Amino acid sequence: MARVTADISVSADGFSTGPNQREDAPFGDGVGEILHEWMFEHGADHREETAAILEAGAYVMGRNMFGPIRGLWTGDWQGWWGPEPPYHAPVFVLTHFPREPVVMAGGTTFHFVTDGIESAVSRAKEAAGDRDVSIAGGAETLNQVLSRRLLDVLRLHVVPLTLGLGGRTDVVRLFDGVPPLRFDPAHVRSTPHVTHITYEIR
Amino acid sequence: MARVTADISVSADGFSTGPNQREDAPFGDGVGEILHEWMFEHGADHREETAAILEAGAYVMGRNMFGPIRGLWTGDWQGWWGPEPPYHAPVFVLTHFPREPVVMAGGTTFHFVTDGIESAVSRAKEAAGDRDVSIAGGAETLNQVLSRRLLDVLRLHVVPLTLGLGGRTDVVRLFDGVPPLRFDPAHVRSTPHVTHITYEIR
Repeated sequence: MARVTADISVSADGFSTGPNQREDAPFGDGVGEILHEWMFEHGADHREETAAILEAGAYVMGRNMFGPIRGLWTGDWQGWWGPEPPYHAPVFVLTHFPREPVVMAGGTTFHFVTDGIESAVSRAKEAAGDRDVSIAGGAETLNQVLSRRLLDVLRLHVVPLTLGLGGRTDVVRLFDGVPPLRFDPAHVRSTPHVTHITYEIR
Repeated sequence: MARVTADISVSADGFSTGPNQREDAPFGDGVGEILHEWMFEHGADHREETAAILEAGAYVMGRNMFGPIRGLWTGDWQGWWGPEPPYHAPVFVLTHFPREPVVMAGGTTFHFVTDGIESAVSRAKEAAGDRDVSIAGGAETLNQVLSRRLLDVLRLHVVPLTLGLGGRTDVVRLFDGVPPLRFDPAHVRSTPHVTHITYEIR
């Protein structure tokens, strides 16, 4: 059966973004690309992990990950990824505001889901068929799927730094609000740029 | 030169204890020995890491790690470890309340330091000579040494589970209040029971 997996790049202190995410600071104040340098600047050292992120048959992501627009949809925002996003598959975006699907080049279609995470995962499973569904982030969406026990495999990419946000209540930290869960560490690999930890969730 | 190292067993969500630590629940509500099973029940699989914890020439620990007594010292509490604690070295306990040193069998002496973490680390360095100083925990003490840049090496022992405390404000989480820091992942090793991550702090 197809699994529900998730990939997320986090700091050692558990953050995937800083505060005040917006169009000119997609990852929030002071964060920049630092949590993704392992993927983009050192791609050759992490081919397997990068490829695995893009193997799913469908994706689910939070609205903050799709774009900086809050409230009603205005303008023609089509995601951060240009005309041909890297997903090449249906992507289900969580939002409170309905919008018609956005068809991009290369097989990516953004669908907007207004009835919650279970519905988004269920629609993604249907779209993915025998392939995995991947939760693309961010931390808040991941905390939701963990809390509702919708996730089978969590692939953490832990960047060896702290963002200095521990204890802040205005930024979501990975595992905030997540109940007690047991994991099996299925695979661990480290490079100077990132430590990959794959947890299978019991 | 001798280094300042630290070992701490934490859950995947970054906690080393739960709320309400007390004499009949040393690790707090609902935590028990679960973060230390790798060491005690599966010791043979983790000999090297366990041995490294006890190689230092002196230790620093927070008062909660030494015992459940708060406020003025009363009675004759001598730590959680019985007549011969495993440290076999001077241990500097952070407290706001002065107390005479407590000499235990096997070379462990508990010294009580009332003038703060820098003083405790400084005294431990002097006592350790050429050997390392180890910060024995808990999370609050570790956050202090990280925040004041007193630490050279952080050895995390990440147990593959969540305690379900993420987002709680009544329990200290590793890295709370710690500013931005850069690490080098010097060594990573995983077993079914724990993932060991050694960070050298830049």
